[in-house]
Amino acid sequence: MFESAELGHKIDKTTFRSEVPKLREALLDAQFDLRENGSFPVVILISGVDGAGKSETINVLYEWMDPRFLSTLAFAAPSDEERERPFMWRFWRALPPKGRMGIFAGSWYSSSIAHHIAGKLSRGDLDQRMDQINRFEAMLVNEGALVLKFWFHLSKDGQRQRLKSLERDPRTAWRVTRESWARVKTYGKLQEAAGHVLRMTNTPWAPWIVIEGTDDRYRSLTVGKIILDALQKRLADTRDQGFPVAPPIVQKTDSLDVLTALDLTQKLDKKAYETQLAKWQGRLAELVRHPAFAHRSLILAFEGADAAGKGGSIRRVTAALDARHYQIVPVAAPTEEERAQPYLWRFWRHIPRHGRVTIFDRTWYGRVLVERVEGFCTEADWLRAYAEINDFEHELHEDGAIVVKFWLQVSDKEQLRRFKEREKIAFKRFKITDEDWRNREKRPAYHAAVCDMVDRTSTGTAPWTLVEADDKSFARVKILRTICERLERALTDEKPKNGKD
Amino acid sequence: MFESAELGHKIDKTTFRSEVPKLREALLDAQFDLRENGSFPVVILISGVDGAGKSETINVLYEWMDPRFLSTLAFAAPSDEERERPFMWRFWRALPPKGRMGIFAGSWYSSSIAHHIAGKLSRGDLDQRMDQINRFEAMLVNEGALVLKFWFHLSKDGQRQRLKSLERDPRTAWRVTRESWARVKTYGKLQEAAGHVLRMTNTPWAPWIVIEGTDDRYRSLTVGKIILDALQKRLADTRDQGFPVAPPIVQKTDSLDVLTALDLTQKLDKKAYETQLAKWQGRLAELVRHPAFAHRSLILAFEGADAAGKGGSIRRVTAALDARHYQIVPVAAPTEEERAQPYLWRFWRHIPRHGRVTIFDRTWYGRVLVERVEGFCTEADWLRAYAEINDFEHELHEDGAIVVKFWLQVSDKEQLRRFKEREKIAFKRFKITDEDWRNREKRPAYHAAVCDMVDRTSTGTAPWTLVEADDKSFARVKILRTICERLERALTDEKPKNGKD
Repeated sequence: MFESAELGHKIDKTTFRSEVPKLREALLDAQFDLRENGSFPVVILISGVDGAGKSETINVLYEWMDPRFLSTLAFAAPSDEERERPFMWRFWRALPPKGRMGIFAGSWYSSSIAHHIAGKLSRGDLDQRMDQINRFEAMLVNEGALVLKFWFHLSKDGQRQRLKSLERDPRTAWRVTRESWARVKTYGKLQEAAGHVLRMTNTPWAPWIVIEGTDDRYRSLTVGKIILDALQKRLADTRDQGFPVAPPIVQKTDSLDVLTALDLTQKLDKKAYETQLAKWQGRLAELVRHPAFAHRSLILAFEGADAAGKGGSIRRVTAALDARHYQIVPVAAPTEEERAQPYLWRFWRHIPRHGRVTIFDRTWYGRVLVERVEGFCTEADWLRAYAEINDFEHELHEDGAIVVKFWLQVSDKEQLRRFKEREKIAFKRFKITDEDWRNREKRPAYHAAVCDMVDRTSTGTAPWTLVEADDKSFARVKILRTICERLERALTDEKPKNGKD
Repeated sequence: MFESAELGHKIDKTTFRSEVPKLREALLDAQFDLRENGSFPVVILISGVDGAGKSETINVLYEWMDPRFLSTLAFAAPSDEERERPFMWRFWRALPPKGRMGIFAGSWYSSSIAHHIAGKLSRGDLDQRMDQINRFEAMLVNEGALVLKFWFHLSKDGQRQRLKSLERDPRTAWRVTRESWARVKTYGKLQEAAGHVLRMTNTPWAPWIVIEGTDDRYRSLTVGKIILDALQKRLADTRDQGFPVAPPIVQKTDSLDVLTALDLTQKLDKKAYETQLAKWQGRLAELVRHPAFAHRSLILAFEGADAAGKGGSIRRVTAALDARHYQIVPVAAPTEEERAQPYLWRFWRHIPRHGRVTIFDRTWYGRVLVERVEGFCTEADWLRAYAEINDFEHELHEDGAIVVKFWLQVSDKEQLRRFKEREKIAFKRFKITDEDWRNREKRPAYHAAVCDMVDRTSTGTAPWTLVEADDKSFARVKILRTICERLERALTDEKPKNGKD
């Protein structure tokens, strides 16, 4: 969930200065429109890591918009009035009415996460509360509200640096308290709890928007643009009220994303490749023979651009496995039988039993990649798919499966080179079709879809591994090493839940 | 949830014989249409109490429809293949494809309920699984499936009698096993667990349909008609696929319902009234002074037809209370401020703190009564309100509130008499308006709305009490007695959860 927010996003002063006046004007217009014609309230949650700029952002929003129609709702320790009523009462009291925007500094999430980290709320109770919150937010959206949930993220190192720089400046030093530093220590715990909570509550009707908190200009501009975009789309939406409207997938404010951040020049020379390949293949062969693996299973998901080298990588993995214990599932267009079922059905049928490995060559992510880009399903369909896929992988994980997901990224230039090579070499010619050439033209659309996919489905239990695949040797070794490391950790550290009947 | 299914519904032989041929023909037609044009699967769950006719109903459906396009999916103890995969895998395998109907004899609910009763699945784990099931069913419905969930109910006595009569008939005696009798003993536990599970999973997209299982003809005819009705509506629905379609509210097959079953002739003579009134008012005054009440609160919800005597009853309750400790909230048309918020907001704002009483004269049920009948909100809005209201009352309960809900029922004749009387007596004239006369014409629509309301929102934690109100004395005493009994049980037996921060 946090990959895109650890890339070091930055906006320079000149860009910021030229963009802000337009944005402010548009925000004021939208706010006016909301007040005059908007029959819905806007609920904005500002949450995240300490020091990631939560209150600074709220100040900027007040500066940019008409403060008469904004309200900020902060929640400290509950009053005695509040303690003697249900948990959600204080938030109900604070809801903004139609035509207005309410900014929640702290929300129904904050105390739940804090209490969980402090050991006062068990995982089960936390999950129950998240379920309650999902129903509450669904009700809000059904009642017409536009719900925007921001999570401001900092890497651990980023948090430390940010606190130091706040301390250095006398104008901001007061923001840094002893608790701020204490929270750096519990960073890992917060990330784990937050990752879980964000996955549970990343619903199609109110998805999370994770923002990198390091750079003030980037953070302010991005939040402002997202609010503007969501407001404008919602104001223009003429559908019947009562139809839940998911906030839109958001345009980027800079050119940095999880894919452009990859260093595709990474290489492995022939000798190093052979040594490493042998090493990791040997390790993998051992790991699947580990006694603990008899109660687990391994699911490998391969996605990537055409000619990124999925097939070759899969062969290097299976070389380490016993043919009786693995199955490769190549995923092409669905069969007639599969089209007559929910889209996840054709993957469920291939789920391995314990002690086995299933390798998917292309996967259930087709829904949010090819089906989204080609318009094979509606926007509502692929928007809800993120949560459905997270649920699916969570069920696999709960049953003891180890889910390892790879996206193989190849540069435009290298892809072109491989396409041309395939056309030349007789035995590779079957691999290249007119469709592949057409897909190349859609690279920007696929690029955006991959970034959204990683942001929304890279979870603690089933994270994405992005593989720099311009050099096939480098890619294959990275894939094998990742599988081994995930397996090793799972077989030694984790206890499978197997909450089975 | 089970009130309507304990009334002794019966269909006589003649009616049954005349209705069945039409129903069968229509079902076959709809099934043909589904096969030829239907781009959706039909998922039918048959669940409920032992001996309530689950397998008999499945047999009847096979007899009435084309068995080539039906499949029955039964789930015994999981195979080793199934045990080594996630819980939902066996159900995914069994899903019917588009154009076909799958009847699930036992489903994703059965084992969860059974394990919970056997103490192998904690309440928290049960809730988590129900959440998972809700998401799964939402996905099915979003993917186009029509999901019909039947729960066959018998009263405890009904179950005993039914087992005896099955045993008596040599053709059915084999159905009754030692386990069947064992289950009579755990009847209470099953009801409690089932009530909870049905409340949790009574979603707008896949609500439960509770059917009384005593009479074979009633059960078969009702199930057949509901399936037909749902199929026809879904086939005629031309909206975009992907729009969740809730199964329709179902027409009744006989004239018996929770309201017609009331004996409105019940009376209390003046002397008995005075004694009883004094007794229960005294008891109530004591109970709200009970030390345990300092950590609880009391919420009284009054609904009823015009002139049913809500105001008078409320005055008899408050006579026993200290004016500093209660608040009466009369609910009329929402104010401008309230209209700018979700419909539950105006009730949330009046939730009492601990040690206090709030009396709502008309309530949040306006959504599924007047707003439904008068068309003030869309069908989708009032359909989702049942679950939202259950969630709301569950939150109140979890926080220690005791929620007591009354529907005051008055006969057509008595209502007319009271209207006329009000017109005559000067100081009562303000109580009667043209609108009251108009509402009288809508009695049948209100009648149906009240029955649906009781079926869908009478939960274990906040049950409805239906009050026979033709005699005001009888009604007032029943109300006071009910409040005292609920309070007494709550203050002595129950532990409030107060899972507070």
